[in-house]
Formats: sequence, structure tokens, C-alpha cells
Amino acid sequence: MGNVGSEVVRILQDHAADLAARVGAPLVLRGVAVRDLSKDRGIDADLLTTDVHGLVARDDVDLVVEVLGGIEPARELILSALNAGKSVVTANKALLAEYTGELAASAERHRADLYFEAAVAGAIPVVRPLMQSLAGDRVDRVIGIVNGTTNFILSAMDETGADYAETLAEAGRLGYAEADPTADVEGYDAAAKAAILASLAFHTRVTSADVHREGISSITADDLATAKAFDCTVKLLALCERVVEDGTERISVRVYPALLPLSHPLARVSGAFNAVVVEAEAAGQLMFYGQGAGGGPTASAVMGDLVMAARNKFFGGRGPGESTYAELPIAPMGDTPTRYHVNMQVEDRAGVLSAVAAEFAKNGVSISTVRQEGASDCARLVVVTHRAKESALAATVAALSDLDIVGAVTSVLRLEGTSE
Amino acid sequence: MGNVGSEVVRILQDHAADLAARVGAPLVLRGVAVRDLSKDRGIDADLLTTDVHGLVARDDVDLVVEVLGGIEPARELILSALNAGKSVVTANKALLAEYTGELAASAERHRADLYFEAAVAGAIPVVRPLMQSLAGDRVDRVIGIVNGTTNFILSAMDETGADYAETLAEAGRLGYAEADPTADVEGYDAAAKAAILASLAFHTRVTSADVHREGISSITADDLATAKAFDCTVKLLALCERVVEDGTERISVRVYPALLPLSHPLARVSGAFNAVVVEAEAAGQLMFYGQGAGGGPTASAVMGDLVMAARNKFFGGRGPGESTYAELPIAPMGDTPTRYHVNMQVEDRAGVLSAVAAEFAKNGVSISTVRQEGASDCARLVVVTHRAKESALAATVAALSDLDIVGAVTSVLRLEGTSE
Repeated sequence: MGNVGSEVVRILQDHAADLAARVGAPLVLRGVAVRDLSKDRGIDADLLTTDVHGLVARDDVDLVVEVLGGIEPARELILSALNAGKSVVTANKALLAEYTGELAASAERHRADLYFEAAVAGAIPVVRPLMQSLAGDRVDRVIGIVNGTTNFILSAMDETGADYAETLAEAGRLGYAEADPTADVEGYDAAAKAAILASLAFHTRVTSADVHREGISSITADDLATAKAFDCTVKLLALCERVVEDGTERISVRVYPALLPLSHPLARVSGAFNAVVVEAEAAGQLMFYGQGAGGGPTASAVMGDLVMAARNKFFGGRGPGESTYAELPIAPMGDTPTRYHVNMQVEDRAGVLSAVAAEFAKNGVSISTVRQEGASDCARLVVVTHRAKESALAATVAALSDLDIVGAVTSVLRLEGTSE
Repeated sequence: MGNVGSEVVRILQDHAADLAARVGAPLVLRGVAVRDLSKDRGIDADLLTTDVHGLVARDDVDLVVEVLGGIEPARELILSALNAGKSVVTANKALLAEYTGELAASAERHRADLYFEAAVAGAIPVVRPLMQSLAGDRVDRVIGIVNGTTNFILSAMDETGADYAETLAEAGRLGYAEADPTADVEGYDAAAKAAILASLAFHTRVTSADVHREGISSITADDLATAKAFDCTVKLLALCERVVEDGTERISVRVYPALLPLSHPLARVSGAFNAVVVEAEAAGQLMFYGQGAGGGPTASAVMGDLVMAARNKFFGGRGPGESTYAELPIAPMGDTPTRYHVNMQVEDRAGVLSAVAAEFAKNGVSISTVRQEGASDCARLVVVTHRAKESALAATVAALSDLDIVGAVTSVLRLEGTSE
């Protein structure tokens, strides 16, 4: 009965008649596992228990909602429920991104539903659309803003011009960042969600370990200012892409802060909001937008799953389970193509641009735009590339750093969401 | 084999292996009904037939896709399929907005699926999210831009300042408006979609006849200019709202052009794109955005439904059917509360504002903002109201028109998408 659990209980009680009509049978709350029985939670005390294993095992329990978070005991509780043929609704992205295979196999074996709409982007329907609505299409790319804390911080930095540390502190004061913000700001939360999204989009099992992950803690006010100069903003993106090279298909799944043109639909997603863009062969570009966290929004997703799982129990049938038939290999980060903004300090004299351009050319990285600033001894040069592999860009940056005329490569940011 | 049908056939053929893996069994194309057998359609001629009734009745046909449009013979074909226990996927909004009851009852009786994601907003998943993802939440409002033709015209008028007739002609030349654009510009298409959305959102049977409908043909360049002056734009909206008054719940379903603040997520939906905003008690505000028409996008939605219906056939079970248990009454338009922009020509002298304000007060319509323009004999006055019932506003406008100091009430536009 934390934020989400309390809201689930409230909806079960306040909307019992509606839910019964939608399921075809009443949804009866059999019990709630809590840590502390002494707290008044505004519900019948007989429903509360600290014996979570006993509650899940009860014969009169058909459906289990898991909103504990973390790996254990969530994993063993979900497994014991599924093994007993009970359907499970969970919001546990960290668990799913690690153990979906084991959990899904158990659901399959025992013909139970394992639903997890709430695990990605809170109230925003994105799991069900990917699994069902797009089941007849070919998804090429998913780009999402799936972490509210980092989006709040980056939006605030963009608006105020303040630096990262200051803005993180402010986010903490306002309740948008936790006391230990590591899981959010270092991209672990987004990476778990990216793994789930990629699994669904590409019918391939993807775990957190497959996700290339970079956080936002090294983003500076200067990065935001540069972005603005190029009509861009900086967002922490979860990217899932189909990479086709010489007829071979692989997928790339990555989380990092990147420049995004202001004209891209995700650029306007500010504050703690989440949004996911899906690009598919027939559907074209779709966007799903809403509140990605919080008790109410997460409970909305849990309740949708719960009603569907209950209907299946009552009428027979199951929702679609895990689909991993495609088994596409994960492309290593070095093989992943994208575009880049390379910022450097260079000597302010003739011939610099030509020397810099030569290094890009040598490594097969094609330049799209160049912008030179300042007329002091040490000028600033920003090079925007066309699409190139990470490995080629890394070799270019190494070569540039060795040039006498280049003081330093001060930042490299990827540029996403452009057609070329 | 029109736009949508051809694309469905293409996907069935190009992605047969993927579809088989997702369904659990191959999706075999048994036949396609066409009007003209002599056209080369790039598929095995043996699959084509003009005998549409015979094709639907064949024993080896388990699933039927209907993309004919129109009421008959679509209605009788769908009924005969459902009555034979065959699941049906349709994109036919006009039919659904009229005959869902009959079709859904047949699907229920024969335990078949009747899926229609493609009937509203093309590729954008909105039917399934409303029916399933939000099944445990309480939807308060759905606001959608669900007609691409009118959105293209209004976006173009907003950008160019051109008038309606000129922009409609341009839309026709570019292929965004049909030769007879009535169904689009007079709001019939949007009204059918509004009826479907309201049925799903409020678990109440709503047909086209329940929808208050106004088109965009009387929108002027001047309306767009006024909108801009108030940081708004004009959109043709499909609105489905829960109206609670003195503890009684009713629903209001309407389609009309209205002012929308530029800060509203739908204001940025331009050109032929569609978007639907759903506001629910627990979920908060959600938005779904994408291509609302065209062969590819519509086929994507059809194919998602087809895969799900096929899975159900193969594994047993059914998707949720029609849900009309709530049976909420439709509020008459006069009882529907919203906000208004009232434009009038008034004499430019002292006391005018006070006399005008008195008429609003007499009818219980509270004024939010007043803007007076011009210093000629005949000034322009724009009054923006707080929320008031249509009947009260109509009485106010009648009273204003009778005032000597008011030359004319030149336009009344509703204002939607604001919190107050």
C-alpha cells in the first residue's frame, strides 16, 4: 500500500460496481500485504497481512497485483502465483527487464496472464499497443522519454540555463528526484524500460544488460545552450532501433542524452511527462503521451490490466504472451549509426577547418554543418555530422584530440530524431 | 482492393512468416472480393472473386476483413460472417456508429470477435486503449481531432490567412479533400467517430444521431485571426464529455469547430494528422497521435486486429465485446456547458461595455475577458465567457442582438481545452 497500491485499493473500492460490470463478475479484494500492520490505511484491517507468501498462496486468490518493486521477493512471489495458475499484474520494470523469460515461461506453462502495462510510462498505453495494435505491422524504431525525473531536470535546465547539480537539487526539493537519484539520472530506470520496449517491438528477448546506457549527470548548461543555437533541445532518450546492414538485421537498444530538433514531437514533452514515439512500416509515426509516474497514473494502468486479466479468468482465454520468435541479435554500440554534434576548442587561424574536416573524411564520417564561434585565440568549432557509426566517430574524436590545432574536444552529443 | 485492402493484402503476403509466428498459425488469404476482375492487382487471379457473399460464406474462411465502407452490403456481410461464428475486422465507422448494437449482439451470441481499431483515427491505437487499457479507470472526457481533411484546411487557413473556400479548393487539388467533401467538412465523418469514442469511453450506446454536429464551412479567415489574437487556433473537435449536474450523470457528444489555446496538446496537431486526448480520473491526460487516414496507416490497424482475432480463434478466448451497462443519458445541447468567444460590432461610446455586460449577467453567463478594438464609430468587442450552458449563451446572444448599441453579433465560437 504505497503510492500505487493505495490508489489501486481506492479504485477497487470506489468503483466496485463499474468494475464488476466491465469484468462480468465482481473484483473482490481478498487481502493486501503490508510491512506494518499498525498504520491506519483507511481500509478494513482484516484485509491487511504481513504474510505476503501466505496471501499469494491462498486458494481464494485468483489474481495478484505486484507493486513492491525490486527483484526479490517480487520474483519468487510472481513465480509462485503464476505456477499456481494465478494471473499477475505487475509494474516492476527492473524485474521484467531481467527475468521476463522465466516469468513468461511460467505464465505460458500454467496458462495465466502476466500483464505489465504499468511497467513502462505509467498510465500511457504503450505495452498493449505494441503487443496488440501493432501486431500486424513491422516496427522500425521506438524513441521514448520514459523517465520523468531526468526529463524534469533537462526541461528545467533548458528553461532556466542553470547547471545540472543545481537543477538536480531543485528537483529533489520539489519531490521530482529521490534522495538517491542514481537509478533515474544514470539511466538505469530508462534502460529497463528500453529493454521491455525493444522486446515487444522486435519480438526478441532483450534484457537490461543488452542496453547501452549513459546518464545525464555530465550534461552542462553549455550543452543546452549549444542545443538551442541549433534549434534543438537535450532529452534523455530510450532508443530501440532495427539496424539493417548488408541485408542483415540487428537491433540497437540504448539510453543516452541526445540532441533532438525542436520540430520533433518529443522535443515538446516537458517536465515530468513521458512520451513514446513508435515508427512502423505501415502505421508511420505514432506518439503516445501522458503521465509516466505517480500513484494515480500507474494505478490506472494496473487496473486496466487487472480488468482484462479478470475477464480472461472469467470467460476463458488469455492475452498474448511473450513473443521472442525473431531472436534478432543486438548490434554492438560501435556498429550503431547515428548523427553527432562535436564541440571543440580550436586555434583561431586559417586552415583549421580544413585540417579538422580532413580527420572526419579520413574516418568516413560525413559532415553536415559546421559552425565557428568567437574570434579570440581559441575559437569554438561545432561540427554536425551525417549518420555514421559510433566506432568511426570515436576514431575521429581520437584523431582530432591529437591535432595540435585542436585544444580539446569539449563535448560529443548524439543527434536523434532527424530523417538524415 | 482499394487503398486499404491492397495494403492489407500486401502485408499478408510480404510478412507471412512474421504474422504466422505472432498468431501461432499461418494467416492464409482465401480470397478477395472485388468489383472488376479484369484489373491486374498483382496477386494470384484465382484469389479474386466478384461473389462477395459466397466468399464470406465459404467454409474455409474463419476471419473476414471488411473495408468496403458504406452501410449495405457491409452490414449484411458482417452479420452473416458473425452469425457463422467468423470474426470480423472492419474499418467502417459509418456502419458502426449506426449499427454497433446489432453487430455486437451477433458477435456476442456466436462468440466471435468484432474488432474495429481502424474505424477511428486510422493507425492510432485508440479503440483498444479505451476498451482495455482504461478498463479500470473512469474516463471523464475525450477530445479528438479525428478528421484529416478539416484539420488540413483549418491548419492551412491558420498559416496562410486564406479564406475557407479558397483553402478547400487547394485541399481538393492536393488530394486532401474529396470531390464531394460534405462528409468531411460538415462533420459527418467526425460525428460517426465521436459516437464510437463516446460508446467506448462511457460504456453507453451512442449513435451518430446522438451527436450534435456542426461543420467548418462557416469558419472565416477572420475567425482564425481572432483566435490568434487570443493565443488560440481553431480546430474541428470531436468532444465526448461526462456532464455531472446535481449528482446526475449524463454525457455530451458533439462535433464542432472551436477555439483551442495554443498551449493545448491538440493545438499543435497540424495538417492531415489526427490526435485524441483522453482525460481519466486516475490516468490524468493522455494523448494519442499519428496518421488518421491512408492505406498504410489504416491497414496497420486492420492487421493488428486481424492478428488478435486470429490468435483468439487459434487459442480460444475472445476480446472484450460491446460494453453498454452504464446507459448514461445524452444531455441535450442546451444543457451542455462550455466557454464562448462572442464577437460583436458595437457603437464606440461610453457605456457600451456596461450595457453588454449587463446582458451576460442577466442570463447568468459569467465574463472572463473582454477585448475592445478599433476607435471608429463602430468598434469591435470580443467577450470571452467562463463555462456556461449553451441555452444561457443563446439567450444572451438573442438579447445582445436586440440592443441598439450592438450592430451585430458577428460570430460565436466555443472555447475548449481550458481548465476553467
